[in-house]
Amino acid sequence: MKVLITTVPFGEKNREPLNALESHNIEYLINPLNKKLTEDELLSLVADFDVIIAGTEQISDRIMEKASNLKMISRVGIGLDSVDLLAAEKRNIKISYTPDAPAPAVAELTVGMMLTLLRSVHVSNSQMHLGEWYRFFGRRLSEVTIGIIGIGRIGQGVLEHLKGFKNPRILVNDTSVKDDIGNKFNVEWSSKEEIYKQSDIVSLHLPLTGKTKDMIQKKHLLSMKTDAIIINTSRGGIINESDLYEVMQSGHLSGAAIDVFDNEPYSGDLKKIERCLLTAHMGSMSVDCRTRMEIEATEEAIRFLTGKALTGLVPEEEYEVQRQGL
Amino acid sequence: MKVLITTVPFGEKNREPLNALESHNIEYLINPLNKKLTEDELLSLVADFDVIIAGTEQISDRIMEKASNLKMISRVGIGLDSVDLLAAEKRNIKISYTPDAPAPAVAELTVGMMLTLLRSVHVSNSQMHLGEWYRFFGRRLSEVTIGIIGIGRIGQGVLEHLKGFKNPRILVNDTSVKDDIGNKFNVEWSSKEEIYKQSDIVSLHLPLTGKTKDMIQKKHLLSMKTDAIIINTSRGGIINESDLYEVMQSGHLSGAAIDVFDNEPYSGDLKKIERCLLTAHMGSMSVDCRTRMEIEATEEAIRFLTGKALTGLVPEEEYEVQRQGL
Repeated sequence: MKVLITTVPFGEKNREPLNALESHNIEYLINPLNKKLTEDELLSLVADFDVIIAGTEQISDRIMEKASNLKMISRVGIGLDSVDLLAAEKRNIKISYTPDAPAPAVAELTVGMMLTLLRSVHVSNSQMHLGEWYRFFGRRLSEVTIGIIGIGRIGQGVLEHLKGFKNPRILVNDTSVKDDIGNKFNVEWSSKEEIYKQSDIVSLHLPLTGKTKDMIQKKHLLSMKTDAIIINTSRGGIINESDLYEVMQSGHLSGAAIDVFDNEPYSGDLKKIERCLLTAHMGSMSVDCRTRMEIEATEEAIRFLTGKALTGLVPEEEYEVQRQGL
Repeated sequence: MKVLITTVPFGEKNREPLNALESHNIEYLINPLNKKLTEDELLSLVADFDVIIAGTEQISDRIMEKASNLKMISRVGIGLDSVDLLAAEKRNIKISYTPDAPAPAVAELTVGMMLTLLRSVHVSNSQMHLGEWYRFFGRRLSEVTIGIIGIGRIGQGVLEHLKGFKNPRILVNDTSVKDDIGNKFNVEWSSKEEIYKQSDIVSLHLPLTGKTKDMIQKKHLLSMKTDAIIINTSRGGIINESDLYEVMQSGHLSGAAIDVFDNEPYSGDLKKIERCLLTAHMGSMSVDCRTRMEIEATEEAIRFLTGKALTGLVPEEEYEVQRQGL
């Protein structure tokens, strides 16, 4: 029984998941490269392992072909864009995930980014550290229109936090209108196109799928207000990165906050845009959420390896999304 | 009737206050140096003016001596540490201010700083712009103890915003226990010393007075948790700046956010501390609050110059604070 832990950091702030593996005499290897693995790097590591406790690295059919002992993947987190679910199904590899654990941390980070961008705090901080002094004008959350695309666990967390700010106008969009949201929050359902046009802040809380890949391109960015703000704490690839760079370089948009990238670690052109707030895929990186994700994913792997019933299996809908290329 | 407007920017986002002066044929001069004036700079400008629409520059007895026509000072904002109220009283110079207008903007900035510091967003942003990638661990507001010193307009605004975050423990302190706060918010009254010791975040919402000047020195900072955070969006001088630098340089405190300084524009040692989030006295700088401050202060000046009753006069308590050196 051998477990490959690809996601890093792991067990760093709380050793509980490693202790659990050890107490069950389960042999494990933590990603020795200490970074998000490329397909080739993972390929060179994966043979002989029965279970992967996985991050966001691609786990393709090619990886599964090489990993001839692989019987289960336990994702630390929620996104499944990195896992070829259909290839796993074909090979009878079980896939579990921890969909609830990251949400509170991502929601808080998002609201912090809204407040930062509205007041140009990141730009002032950079200038102040260079000894420059300029008093930026800003806007308040209570004064703006906020568009939230994706009203799942994280989108709803953001709405919850916004309750402490009086009267922002909030537009929401999801693949289906969820009636209970209207009871819990003071929001207006809206099309994505209207959200782009009317919002001062657009924030994305979506999975990366065939349907959301490249969802926001140049034309969508240009349909936003000149001084609008866009925030992506969900997945790289949903906003076209080079389009975002080009549009911001031209002076459009007053700011952006990007935590997720096409290729991570990121070192692309957006770093040239001072008003673009960049973070290193830290959405779920609060100690409490990260610990919960690691423990949940590890406990699920242990359940699998000790023949117990799994509790975090990815639901059929997720397979359907990939089956239909949605 | 001549008005000197010392605070800058002024009338920049909304010309209404300038229009109001012009429609009353009131001659005005906007601070030609376009920066916070030193005492000598103000001295060279101030002769002949009847009214100053003032920022945070020092208006001392020496200034009032020189400004032999001065009959009124209308402060754009709330702090009165910059105005020698007793010298003004002696010379029968009226002082008005706009105590409510800045609060919403300062409260939002403060909450944004809390979220930024808890997740090291400012440090990650600096690193990412240099092409570096490091995933910082952070904490969530819901998981920490927050100490708020000063529960006036701004402190209460912060508490209001924190309502959207589940269950942080909140300790509060003010010069007097305000019973209604306990009904409106889920807080514990506490001594300042206990707040320093127990809080993960300490945020100051106090005027600068004889009592609060240098209130937080090295020993207080060292009594805080090693990974605590301190935020000052109130007035420079309340935290001893060189003590804060020294303590952070030694590795104590996980972060600080400082918007206000002993001398502004600031270009001191704190800029060497990457985890110290610095902004350029931008607390009140949301367009809506700044506009309201400028309009209120200008309307008060016009009321004075047209012989109408003043509505924003500084209350007697503020004179008492300076009289007693409190």
